[in-house]
Amino acid sequence: MANFGLDDLRVVNPYEVAFREAVSAVGGAPVLKKARVFETVAEAVADCSLAVGTTAAQKRELQQPIALVQEGMQEIREHAGPVALLFGSEKFGLSNDDMSYCHSLLRIPTAPGTPSMNLGQAVAVCLYELNREAGIKPPRRSRTDLIEGADAEQLTKMLLDVLEKSGYTNRITAVSTEQKIRRWVRRMRLTQRDVPLLLGILRQVLWKFDK
Amino acid sequence: MANFGLDDLRVVNPYEVAFREAVSAVGGAPVLKKARVFETVAEAVADCSLAVGTTAAQKRELQQPIALVQEGMQEIREHAGPVALLFGSEKFGLSNDDMSYCHSLLRIPTAPGTPSMNLGQAVAVCLYELNREAGIKPPRRSRTDLIEGADAEQLTKMLLDVLEKSGYTNRITAVSTEQKIRRWVRRMRLTQRDVPLLLGILRQVLWKFDK
Repeated sequence: MANFGLDDLRVVNPYEVAFREAVSAVGGAPVLKKARVFETVAEAVADCSLAVGTTAAQKRELQQPIALVQEGMQEIREHAGPVALLFGSEKFGLSNDDMSYCHSLLRIPTAPGTPSMNLGQAVAVCLYELNREAGIKPPRRSRTDLIEGADAEQLTKMLLDVLEKSGYTNRITAVSTEQKIRRWVRRMRLTQRDVPLLLGILRQVLWKFDK
Repeated sequence: MANFGLDDLRVVNPYEVAFREAVSAVGGAPVLKKARVFETVAEAVADCSLAVGTTAAQKRELQQPIALVQEGMQEIREHAGPVALLFGSEKFGLSNDDMSYCHSLLRIPTAPGTPSMNLGQAVAVCLYELNREAGIKPPRRSRTDLIEGADAEQLTKMLLDVLEKSGYTNRITAVSTEQKIRRWVRRMRLTQRDVPLLLGILRQVLWKFDK
């Protein structure tokens, strides 16, 4: 991250011992020292209006469109607001649940038979590609009209509440429904003006259910 | 390397214990298991007609032109014969002596203040860039008209012999002269037809010295 001019590292639910050791190591990287820890992906991306996940895209059927890293980084460069780039664990990558918080996914093209990359190497390739054309720039901090992760998550939760109370949500498929709704809310690319309107509608529906 | 479809790993003078452990590890990478060990850079690149070195290009004045990784990989893709891509050790990078075996050098653009990359990440970025446009292909094995490393080294050694015996080489600057000559022989891009002619001339000069 430091090599490519990025400094906002966010770690979700890290393995405590290893992470503490890494952070407190003498001569440890400044990026690591100021890393922030979150308990959930939702909290980690709460202030981001675009979240892009990375995947080897081999093991499971993906529910979302998947771009090559070149295209994905193009999208990130063109996005006006804060962007989260998500990497999964070394062993398992991003889960379907992790990916449901992403607006889009990308993959690094690799040779057949060896799709899975070392985590640090995948990060390096992505950040190299991010800066490849434009050169290395200070991170952008401008606001965007698109909703941030926290708004998206509030809408998701309220919509799920509506679906459950309406009897739509089957208990057996509850988890996959939740992921489906989460993805759908993000795929819509809602703007901040949409939020009060949609929240108002959902609140009204919930009020009606309770009566 | 496996991720990007390459398989010919050559290791120069590795730290014996760590290397043996890595090679013999259960579940070790096939690329590592078939890696070849050489005592010198000269031997490692002996059958290559192009050798490209990688450097952070910050610590010392470079004696050779240095390209961005995009340009360097373009040169490698366009080269018809076997190509060596050289990486230095994690701590020190390539030495001036190592670089004197290279026809050209390349660097990965990084943020100011953090020029030095992790070795594995630098390798990943270079090999990603190598395949970025063209996709991943099996390594080429066609012969080229350009001389290989072994020929270049034979010419270098004989030319140095001539310089020493002629009194050109100052003992104090002998090392830098050797590197200069080695770079110069490679920069000329000699073809295989040039070799007998040049060797003949040098042999004749040496014979004359001995008389």
